[in-house]
Amino acid sequence: MRNIKLIIEYDGTNYHGWQSQVNARGIQDVMQDALNRLTGDKCRLIGSSRTDAGVHALGQVANFQTSSSIPPERFSYALNSMLPDDIVVKKSEEVDSHFHARYSAKGKKYMYLIYNSPQPSALLRNRAYHVSYPLDFEAMQKASQYFMGTHDFSAFRAAGSGVKTSKRTIFHVSLERKEEIIKFEIAGDGFLYNMVRIIAGTLVEVGAGKISAQSIPEIIGGCDRSKAGKTAPAHGLYLVEVYY
Amino acid sequence: MRNIKLIIEYDGTNYHGWQSQVNARGIQDVMQDALNRLTGDKCRLIGSSRTDAGVHALGQVANFQTSSSIPPERFSYALNSMLPDDIVVKKSEEVDSHFHARYSAKGKKYMYLIYNSPQPSALLRNRAYHVSYPLDFEAMQKASQYFMGTHDFSAFRAAGSGVKTSKRTIFHVSLERKEEIIKFEIAGDGFLYNMVRIIAGTLVEVGAGKISAQSIPEIIGGCDRSKAGKTAPAHGLYLVEVYY
Repeated sequence: MRNIKLIIEYDGTNYHGWQSQVNARGIQDVMQDALNRLTGDKCRLIGSSRTDAGVHALGQVANFQTSSSIPPERFSYALNSMLPDDIVVKKSEEVDSHFHARYSAKGKKYMYLIYNSPQPSALLRNRAYHVSYPLDFEAMQKASQYFMGTHDFSAFRAAGSGVKTSKRTIFHVSLERKEEIIKFEIAGDGFLYNMVRIIAGTLVEVGAGKISAQSIPEIIGGCDRSKAGKTAPAHGLYLVEVYY
Repeated sequence: MRNIKLIIEYDGTNYHGWQSQVNARGIQDVMQDALNRLTGDKCRLIGSSRTDAGVHALGQVANFQTSSSIPPERFSYALNSMLPDDIVVKKSEEVDSHFHARYSAKGKKYMYLIYNSPQPSALLRNRAYHVSYPLDFEAMQKASQYFMGTHDFSAFRAAGSGVKTSKRTIFHVSLERKEEIIKFEIAGDGFLYNMVRIIAGTLVEVGAGKISAQSIPEIIGGCDRSKAGKTAPAHGLYLVEVYY
């Protein structure tokens, strides 16, 4: 058996997330079906992250075991000829048998896009969060830097997630504005459920003057979800890269 | 009667172009229906350009006459609440009664996006022309500059277009590459039918080594459509701005 690693780009608009829900197709299912037709195996495709409905990926990572003799680098071409065009395998390669897309991950990078203009964007309607009121970009930049480092991120976690520890280390944060588009990037050793979307929503509230930039350390320290901002919508979020 | 000018962004993917075809909805029709419901008039919406099926717009311009008392700047908000979310009115304002979106236009700016990577892009599948083989970007840049100035562009015109003169002046050309995305911008006093797409297709053939950059002046001078490159697909093209 060989262990194959895939790097996947997808437009999450038409799917109920990475994982299938009852009566709703997930990206994982669509890919597993294509894999099984291709290899004749019953493959189990392991993804690094279970992205939510509407969330996009530029670099989702997944792996599967196969006895197929297809050359590893050809899986991308073979799969792309079978997949719908909103799911694309960018790269395929053979990896060590111990490689596990989820458990071997050492960190992840996400991007969140905000479209800040009085009117929405037709072209970015499913790709960026439309904020129609003016945002104080400098305050947002200042606030964003407080997320750097190791913190208990309980205040930025959706209720009902079952992980043991809520301590995470953020090692990269950037916020850029180019005309109407604000691009927020964040990388860390792991993220709690909805953490990036809650941070993005909090930054928007800082930009709107509802939360002060200076109060972010206190909000992080307080570990109280109700003190952080609203969860920003899924369609502005992109899984950019997974580190191993 | 007041004359109202609209600036419009649209995702052309789901439409048969600006103008309606037999049995196929155009963007103009969808907008005219919304306008008529809004104003109670029988408005005629005049667009600056009849963009083809699949072509996008960041700044299409249109105008219409109305007796409605809606404040001019409110038309954008009122129309957006009625339009599908792949058509957005970015701005509305009252203009001089002589303003005509098509005949008053002094020039236009277009953008053409190429996605140059072995595998396609899921997110840009309807937004950029996928070219899977390597392109010589420097040769393309050199070739692009030959389009500047006043020329007879017969070699870059689709057959069957009925305009009198094929002389046009190009006053801006730029070509940028950022990772996999090549962005071509061109502005001029007017464009022949399919002219930007044929120029884009020709640049791709220059990048592929099928046409030499140095031969562009000769191809322009020869006025022979068969010597230029193929027409690049519609979905990479964007109408960016109309000058008045």
